Amino acid sequence: MEIRDPVHGSIFYSDSEVAVLDTPEYQRLRAIKQLGYAEFSFPGATHNRYLHSIGVGHLAGQTFDSIFKVYPFSKPSTKTRFRQALRLAALLHDVGHGPLSHTTEQVMPHLSQLNIKIYKEQEQYGEEAHTVMNHNRRANHEDYTIKYVTDSGIAKTLVSNFADISPLHIACLIDKALYCPDDFFIDNGVDFRPILSQLVSSEVDVDRMDYLERDSYFCGTNYGKIDHAWLIQNMTFYRKENKMYLAINRRALYSFDDFLISRHHMHLMVYCHHKSIIYEEMLNRYLTSPDCSFKLPGDINEYTLYNDYRLHEHLNHVQNPWAQRIAQRRPFKVLIEQHNTSVSDRPELIKNALKNEGLEVIRTSSKNRLSKYHTASPEERAIQIYVVDQYDRWAQPAPINQTTEIFHRYEGARIIDRIYVAPEQVAAADKILQSLKLS
Amino acid sequence: MEIRDPVHGSIFYSDSEVAVLDTPEYQRLRAIKQLGYAEFSFPGATHNRYLHSIGVGHLAGQTFDSIFKVYPFSKPSTKTRFRQALRLAALLHDVGHGPLSHTTEQVMPHLSQLNIKIYKEQEQYGEEAHTVMNHNRRANHEDYTIKYVTDSGIAKTLVSNFADISPLHIACLIDKALYCPDDFFIDNGVDFRPILSQLVSSEVDVDRMDYLERDSYFCGTNYGKIDHAWLIQNMTFYRKENKMYLAINRRALYSFDDFLISRHHMHLMVYCHHKSIIYEEMLNRYLTSPDCSFKLPGDINEYTLYNDYRLHEHLNHVQNPWAQRIAQRRPFKVLIEQHNTSVSDRPELIKNALKNEGLEVIRTSSKNRLSKYHTASPEERAIQIYVVDQYDRWAQPAPINQTTEIFHRYEGARIIDRIYVAPEQVAAADKILQSLKLS
Amino acid sequence: MEIRDPVHGSIFYSDSEVAVLDTPEYQRLRAIKQLGYAEFSFPGATHNRYLHSIGVGHLAGQTFDSIFKVYPFSKPSTKTRFRQALRLAALLHDVGHGPLSHTTEQVMPHLSQLNIKIYKEQEQYGEEAHTVMNHNRRANHEDYTIKYVTDSGIAKTLVSNFADISPLHIACLIDKALYCPDDFFIDNGVDFRPILSQLVSSEVDVDRMDYLERDSYFCGTNYGKIDHAWLIQNMTFYRKENKMYLAINRRALYSFDDFLISRHHMHLMVYCHHKSIIYEEMLNRYLTSPDCSFKLPGDINEYTLYNDYRLHEHLNHVQNPWAQRIAQRRPFKVLIEQHNTSVSDRPELIKNALKNEGLEVIRTSSKNRLSKYHTASPEERAIQIYVVDQYDRWAQPAPINQTTEIFHRYEGARIIDRIYVAPEQVAAADKILQSLKLS
Amino acid sequence: MEIRDPVHGSIFYSDSEVAVLDTPEYQRLRAIKQLGYAEFSFPGATHNRYLHSIGVGHLAGQTFDSIFKVYPFSKPSTKTRFRQALRLAALLHDVGHGPLSHTTEQVMPHLSQLNIKIYKEQEQYGEEAHTVMNHNRRANHEDYTIKYVTDSGIAKTLVSNFADISPLHIACLIDKALYCPDDFFIDNGVDFRPILSQLVSSEVDVDRMDYLERDSYFCGTNYGKIDHAWLIQNMTFYRKENKMYLAINRRALYSFDDFLISRHHMHLMVYCHHKSIIYEEMLNRYLTSPDCSFKLPGDINEYTLYNDYRLHEHLNHVQNPWAQRIAQRRPFKVLIEQHNTSVSDRPELIKNALKNEGLEVIRTSSKNRLSKYHTASPEERAIQIYVVDQYDRWAQPAPINQTTEIFHRYEGARIIDRIYVAPEQVAAADKILQSLKLS
Repeated sequence: MEIRDPVHGSIFYSDSEVAVLDTPEYQRLRAIKQLGYAEFSFPGATHNRYLHSIGVGHLAGQTFDSIFKVYPFSKPSTKTRFRQALRLAALLHDVGHGPLSHTTEQVMPHLSQLNIKIYKEQEQYGEEAHTVMNHNRRANHEDYTIKYVTDSGIAKTLVSNFADISPLHIACLIDKALYCPDDFFIDNGVDFRPILSQLVSSEVDVDRMDYLERDSYFCGTNYGKIDHAWLIQNMTFYRKENKMYLAINRRALYSFDDFLISRHHMHLMVYCHHKSIIYEEMLNRYLTSPDCSFKLPGDINEYTLYNDYRLHEHLNHVQNPWAQRIAQRRPFKVLIEQHNTSVSDRPELIKNALKNEGLEVIRTSSKNRLSKYHTASPEERAIQIYVVDQYDRWAQPAPINQTTEIFHRYEGARIIDRIYVAPEQVAAADKILQSLKLS
Repeated sequence: MEIRDPVHGSIFYSDSEVAVLDTPEYQRLRAIKQLGYAEFSFPGATHNRYLHSIGVGHLAGQTFDSIFKVYPFSKPSTKTRFRQALRLAALLHDVGHGPLSHTTEQVMPHLSQLNIKIYKEQEQYGEEAHTVMNHNRRANHEDYTIKYVTDSGIAKTLVSNFADISPLHIACLIDKALYCPDDFFIDNGVDFRPILSQLVSSEVDVDRMDYLERDSYFCGTNYGKIDHAWLIQNMTFYRKENKMYLAINRRALYSFDDFLISRHHMHLMVYCHHKSIIYEEMLNRYLTSPDCSFKLPGDINEYTLYNDYRLHEHLNHVQNPWAQRIAQRRPFKVLIEQHNTSVSDRPELIKNALKNEGLEVIRTSSKNRLSKYHTASPEERAIQIYVVDQYDRWAQPAPINQTTEIFHRYEGARIIDRIYVAPEQVAAADKILQSLKLS
Repeated sequence: MEIRDPVHGSIFYSDSEVAVLDTPEYQRLRAIKQLGYAEFSFPGATHNRYLHSIGVGHLAGQTFDSIFKVYPFSKPSTKTRFRQALRLAALLHDVGHGPLSHTTEQVMPHLSQLNIKIYKEQEQYGEEAHTVMNHNRRANHEDYTIKYVTDSGIAKTLVSNFADISPLHIACLIDKALYCPDDFFIDNGVDFRPILSQLVSSEVDVDRMDYLERDSYFCGTNYGKIDHAWLIQNMTFYRKENKMYLAINRRALYSFDDFLISRHHMHLMVYCHHKSIIYEEMLNRYLTSPDCSFKLPGDINEYTLYNDYRLHEHLNHVQNPWAQRIAQRRPFKVLIEQHNTSVSDRPELIKNALKNEGLEVIRTSSKNRLSKYHTASPEERAIQIYVVDQYDRWAQPAPINQTTEIFHRYEGARIIDRIYVAPEQVAAADKILQSLKLS
Repeated sequence: MEIRDPVHGSIFYSDSEVAVLDTPEYQRLRAIKQLGYAEFSFPGATHNRYLHSIGVGHLAGQTFDSIFKVYPFSKPSTKTRFRQALRLAALLHDVGHGPLSHTTEQVMPHLSQLNIKIYKEQEQYGEEAHTVMNHNRRANHEDYTIKYVTDSGIAKTLVSNFADISPLHIACLIDKALYCPDDFFIDNGVDFRPILSQLVSSEVDVDRMDYLERDSYFCGTNYGKIDHAWLIQNMTFYRKENKMYLAINRRALYSFDDFLISRHHMHLMVYCHHKSIIYEEMLNRYLTSPDCSFKLPGDINEYTLYNDYRLHEHLNHVQNPWAQRIAQRRPFKVLIEQHNTSVSDRPELIKNALKNEGLEVIRTSSKNRLSKYHTASPEERAIQIYVVDQYDRWAQPAPINQTTEIFHRYEGARIIDRIYVAPEQVAAADKILQSLKLS
């Protein structure tokens, strides 16, 4: 079937893949917007996680083809199988996402309520596996994703449509910490799981390539416009000690820099827009208030009914003042906005001065980094992207963070501090500010 | 305030206009998709009537400026007033739209329940006014629009923000049949209501110009790509017997043809896509079934809470089989599709053959015309668009349908007949068809 | 090698194909603009026939892959060979184009001076072959194309890079009238030459698909925006009496209509723009004047040095008044422009009135048809495009002109008559016109 | 007149401005490509300096309108005059550009041959004026620009079409070092020349905004896609000591960063592409060889006949081996490419090794900086762009290089070293390299 995508054009999916897309569990993504409240500042941004995921699956196939065009796999079927597993993992990487945004993870249940069988099975594999997993915690959207992939209507559809790929293998490409008990990812003694995992999730994965282009297209901004065709053409592999890693040709290194900076600027200008931030914060206040009656269920079939529509309907009909502010579009207004590279004490001083005069104040602080290298999990940091150079025969493949200077240039975080007050108190707040003496 | 629109770029709205946009009544349009179920065939088509309306208001201002760049109004304030009234009418032309699509008009209440005061006031103006209005009917979305504009939170916002424009004047630009009791639209003895009304609604209005470009952008198709900049630059006025009418320069007549054909092809390829049609029909079956519990309220404040989200949530939670088919994406499938320019009896023969064998069958028939001239109301038909020619000094301004041949060329309707059956009965239906003898 | 094309993205060509592109003969196309003098009205239209041809070759491959995705050729190598021959024919279809536009065909030499050997060889094949060819005529750009393909540096590059394809086979796909003496195009008894020829040149060939999109992109107009992805996906084959023809799926028939109308509107608005027309006419007057010293050589290596640059340089340095008007941008100006569907005698009356008063007048008349069916050669008309319908099992494949009504709707020609006068005589001409009595 | 631009849409120019555009001197820009030899690597890049200049004039007007929307000039005519002078300076900023690229400046004559009268007049103004000017040097393209603006057919057209603006005033906006002898730029005691000059030429001028978008569009790359609408909306003025300077609102500072990095990446990926660099270098070798017969004339009317076409024709017809390599597309090939932030001695070692074996070698080194702050003239550095912050009431306007960290982050230069050899010697060179021992 051809799916028409304004970003990538016509995208082809096989009947077996369409069977996955057509499950109610997958269709749920149609009702979860990609950018949550960003539509309040960028009204074109109504695109959903359904089309994004379809785009990610498409780029996964394209990238695989580009990297392994002439690679001598032991059998054609191995190539087909790796490619299919990758596409499915890409299609499903986000399937457990909660309504609206990560903020709703606050009302997710305890992990045990999801009853994820493969998590328990992992325990038998001892130290190598998921043993460090803390079962004593709240579930997050990644847990729901693994649940959907391995134990739901989607899992059944996978089993009946893809004979040589099990749900666990797909889960292994989504979650790098899962242990794979068989040789599914091995060909001729080489382990392809690292590179396939990196395509799903890494510094330059197909998820990011899709969402930057897509968010730019629907928001109507240019920040996220990247040269993904050039990046994809110049992706390759690098084998090290029987493991296959993602690599980039030297000549696309500026495209990589451009990609990272595009993403950084999308964060600063779009994802951290002052309106998105305040709506998220008001939602957060409602969800964590004692009278909140919106709770996400552990049962996966019930969870399938929870989406943006249900949350919006809920907020429209409850009395909590934060919910009412959201539903009636009466958000707190920005009073002060400050961009720093280090922590400043001025926002706290201002906040206190306003509070002392009896005003209700919300202070937010958004920390933006160029890259998640700094905060990556140990599993992710262990799997590196390499740079290879075809024009310089003395060049050795090297990890990307040793090759580009971009990480060094953008080392620190960029912090956006904001003070918001209720719209009806803006005038009063202004007055107080005028009497403040600050350097 | 600048609003970022991926279709038109940055759009400026004044604080007074933003006050209108920020009412909960207007914000409701954010939760009504422009193309209803079309997102099931064109997944990018998640754009809403909110941004469309903002685009329409923007094009209204642009077009006004282009037409009247050097026109000698008696006072600058007259020009400003006409322009503002036009922009507001354009912004508000769709504000009463029901959830999802026109299908929900089925569950609108009796007109009397809306209690539209200006309809009653019109009666005093005798024959010239809205006297032919049938008050004994079901309300439609245009009635809700007039209600919002003249008697709601929006009306109050208009009154307090626009001193020299009354809600009735805006209503008069949206509904050509309303009687205007004062000389608001007169300047120097010339009546500008015809041209301003035509810009809001006519064969080549700003509504259509916006939605063709916008639907193309979000669907990712090219059919609707029109040359709106050239059309707008070549729009002008034609004065006839103290009335001012919309006119187009001869040199943009091919652009006008292109515009009409673009719209026709959007209808045939996008708006009448077989998936949209079957989902609409299934919704229709639910809404007209005896157990339907989704009814639109007459009270305008309650109505403000009814949007796509509420309808989807409702369908997700009721037991009616058509609602369940929609919610779980198990639509009837196309068995036969036929395109004709005249009525064919084959679809009926096939339908009966299938029914005789006990199959459940849905037959749909979509009639597409190039233009609504054929079906326009008497008020609309009376107000014509003219063509003027600056390169041929012997040419007389003439009504557009006498100038272009396009209406003649596309005179007939194009009828798309389809037969759908339940997905689980497709195989059986196929068998029956094979045994049918049809020429 | 990847070639970056703003219209189609990154395009891949093999080393053997690049060897053809890199010949000086092919590189000559870089210096021949696609739209000649159109850049005077659409200044972005500086794109050349080099990139257009590269786009055509790319679309040829895409279309072939779409049509024959699962076709059971007798051997894989047959498929590869057909695909390669098609791509080469597409790449080379325009290679003999004269400088600037077809106007320079006026100064092409007698056909005999090109010494095209395969034309002579065709004579041995008797009646079936090129015997009707009139050797007693002026050469045209198609002759130069056949010369380049079969007897030049390009021919040598073809021979040394493509072992199983001869230049004659490529020529046979470009010129439908050439006789193919071997079974190159036969597989399993079926002749594929018709469909491959149609992809190179027919009502809906890859040449037109490329130039409509490309000209729109560079001119900055929307007329030519077509849905080429949908068209290509829905192209298929139809076998009739051992010959394979191009066919289109019924569901893409509106896209086909849209494509034809797009092309028609591009003709009316862009290709026949009054500035292009007058510059072409002035060039024509120079080239046919007795003092013209610009003649195209019959020797193919010398011809390779003739391009737009050389023509512009020439016009800049000769004294002929038409050449000077072109070089110094002092074209005649449009006085009157008239669009008709039948012949009008008014232009002639006006022209005579102006001439009688001693003014220098140019009268032009551009005739535009929707389709070249009306004027096609017998060879072309004999090879039809079919429509097949996968949704209507009673539908029989039928020639496209019997299926769509578009040809009927746009049957007549559209004639644009114009009268131009010298810029310094516009005022005088205006005066004369005012005194003319015309209905 | 409306000019259709694929990048900015329809652009309006007044009749007086069109008179300037229509001079043969201005039309010459049609035959000078914006990116010279870049079309050999990006074949869409055939756009010329004519359309670029038209785009620059358009952005100049837009930016002026955005900055001075509500500024209280003493008279409306002052505003109109400043705006017009700015647009003309923007339109004309590049008019003296030599054929193809800056490489042809090598064959420009001695400055005295241009006979630029206003240079001589400046001498009377003593130290404040152009006294440091070295008249004892070769002319460059800026000198030809000043000549065209002040003493040519263009100058005459300016004088007869713009009563209140003299060519000298326009020249003063193009060349910051020229002394303005009257109060043309003064309104209410404030000097507007700094901000108007900055719009024509500075770190974020309309020239760069246009060429980044335009080069991206025609090359088909995304690097140069910038948010120019947001930048323009957020441009403002800052008055300091009776001088008016260009300023940017704080909230557009990331857009400014993005703009600088976009430009940097365009330099690295497009402008310094290895093919452009080698063609430029081969042209340089021809132009500086003793047998070169291509010399640019000092006479401005003769110079008007020199454009890309003439250069290409010339190269096609001379025997010099470098000219022949260019004409026949047989450039030297990249053997080694190295990207550094500091000077490396390896390229020199390799070059010598190859030369010792008798190979002909070209070594190139391209130095790229983020910004020209480092290399700006004293006049330019003295005129700073400021940042103003409307969300932080304690913020003081400050020079932009003290506000963003981007200059600091990209402080060093990026050096691209390359070694090229003749295509016929690549194999031999490869062999020599293999025997080289380099760390």
